[in-house]
Amino acid sequence: MSLQKIDFSGQIVSYLINEPFNSLEKFYPTDKTLILTDETVYNLHEAKFYGYKVIKINGTEKSKNQATIDDIISQMLKLSIDKSWMLLGVGGGVITDMAGFAASIYKRGIKLGLAPTTILGMTDAAIGGKNGVNVGVYKNMVGTMHRPTFILFDFSFLDTLSKAEWINGFAEIIKHACIKDANMFDELAKHNIDYYLQNRNAIASLIEKNISIKTTVVLNDEFETDERYLLNFGHTFGHAIENTYKLPHGHAVSLGMVIAAKISEEINNFYSIDKERLIELLKQYDLPVSIKIDVNNAYDLLKKDKKSSGDGINFVLLNKIGEAKVLKIPFIMLESLIDQIL
Amino acid sequence: MSLQKIDFSGQIVSYLINEPFNSLEKFYPTDKTLILTDETVYNLHEAKFYGYKVIKINGTEKSKNQATIDDIISQMLKLSIDKSWMLLGVGGGVITDMAGFAASIYKRGIKLGLAPTTILGMTDAAIGGKNGVNVGVYKNMVGTMHRPTFILFDFSFLDTLSKAEWINGFAEIIKHACIKDANMFDELAKHNIDYYLQNRNAIASLIEKNISIKTTVVLNDEFETDERYLLNFGHTFGHAIENTYKLPHGHAVSLGMVIAAKISEEINNFYSIDKERLIELLKQYDLPVSIKIDVNNAYDLLKKDKKSSGDGINFVLLNKIGEAKVLKIPFIMLESLIDQIL
Repeated sequence: MSLQKIDFSGQIVSYLINEPFNSLEKFYPTDKTLILTDETVYNLHEAKFYGYKVIKINGTEKSKNQATIDDIISQMLKLSIDKSWMLLGVGGGVITDMAGFAASIYKRGIKLGLAPTTILGMTDAAIGGKNGVNVGVYKNMVGTMHRPTFILFDFSFLDTLSKAEWINGFAEIIKHACIKDANMFDELAKHNIDYYLQNRNAIASLIEKNISIKTTVVLNDEFETDERYLLNFGHTFGHAIENTYKLPHGHAVSLGMVIAAKISEEINNFYSIDKERLIELLKQYDLPVSIKIDVNNAYDLLKKDKKSSGDGINFVLLNKIGEAKVLKIPFIMLESLIDQIL
Repeated sequence: MSLQKIDFSGQIVSYLINEPFNSLEKFYPTDKTLILTDETVYNLHEAKFYGYKVIKINGTEKSKNQATIDDIISQMLKLSIDKSWMLLGVGGGVITDMAGFAASIYKRGIKLGLAPTTILGMTDAAIGGKNGVNVGVYKNMVGTMHRPTFILFDFSFLDTLSKAEWINGFAEIIKHACIKDANMFDELAKHNIDYYLQNRNAIASLIEKNISIKTTVVLNDEFETDERYLLNFGHTFGHAIENTYKLPHGHAVSLGMVIAAKISEEINNFYSIDKERLIELLKQYDLPVSIKIDVNNAYDLLKKDKKSSGDGINFVLLNKIGEAKVLKIPFIMLESLIDQIL
């Protein structure tokens, strides 16, 4: 177990790494903690929630919308939650995002705690203060920045995580490797999902490394003017297709990384052999590398992206494995690139 | 015309005081400014909006809710508004509050400008960064803090403001006098609504004084741990009855100030004669000073207030005209006080 205190623009976020869930009571009073979780996590871990007030929602991407937030807010009012309470999100990225958004707008903001239960949540969604809900098929179109008081990483949640969710999480880990850590890329290439499934020390150490990568990037550029933007690698195209084609987030990001690698090859001198290494690695972790989609539709969705502005979109490209950059691609060029690549 | 730059915790908000609306183009490009306004303001001032993209909504308190925010967000998406745009709220407090909330959550936050068109908006709602929407009868239960880039005060909007809205605005002005400015209280006592309606210099100078009072209080305590809390004078009880009894905000605040003055007399040595002076002043400005309500219902609503916590509620009381303080009143005591006073 370790405690790290991270200073995000003057607000301290405590990382409780490899800390059992039941030690939470040391960090905030149980009788002032309202848990937001989903049915699956609740049913698997009911005993952990004893003594807490709990709101259970459907934690799927489909329900990550304003209607669910309205429902959470109205339950919070019924429970007479006031500003002395903390809302604690316990679940995957959908739950931690919705907990963050609800906590940020309820009575103009109450305290937030996060206990991510998935690899994706631990290495990505729970870190950095961003939250959001979807509007129709558009991902995270509404949201805020709201930093948690603490994030508790209890790796024992991974024992009950489905293999499909493990695979999802590795998409973000591979993303981190691509943009920031060539050594981690090589390490990942030596193993596969089953290795990490069976080796608790290896997955714990891998997750800690990814917590550190994401945190460092966010600290360097909390308001995403620059370096943080690189975390969008694979996400621009990924977000455009995720909800339209009802893909798991990791699958969408995997496909987005393949597209971004191909565009990098076309216009950024990214080596073809490295593109192939990335495609092989994604396959090795059971992630998809091609999909049949409607090109025009994908292109229209890209134009609605949060990252689009004026006549183009800021796209994250790879220089090489472990190093990325942002390039503004005019829509007209993007259209012909997508046409050519897909 | 005057330009004041106010530094709220490092973010500069420009106050464009007595500045004509059509000079807005100097402060932000027209083709990147989306106006949010209501039907009434639009119909009265259509020519002012030429060249702007405009979203028109129903600007009444009844529509100040999440459903209207959802509608605004979906129109913003249809208009392909990206993060380079500013959302400019032009209207009363309902409009500026909804513009602030929508701008703060759309794509995790875009720029905000405010052009309040009512006395209430100019002296209170538009200043201080708070926004919010109602949840059922509960006022402003959901919202954020989101500071505008500028606030434009064009006093010519007041020429088309109904007398009922003038009266509403004076409730907040009298509130400022009660908590901060005994001289302004005396000045108000010498005049009435009709005097200010007919005397443009007097109302301009009075509004400027109130902008300054509210701004000073907010600057001293932006996150409402202390002094800013005093601005809630008359609002605790006022908010509890406003939507249940479908009262104009100013009427609700007027009634709330009478209740708070009576409680101040009971438990804070506030002089009976000063309570009577306040009641007379409110009447002089055509504001209500008594209402027939269900005591139990009012009491239940108070307990849901944002300012309630644990076993009591922080209540703003007057020491004397021009000086207020906050006292935590236990619910059980409040119940008997309300019983006795109403």
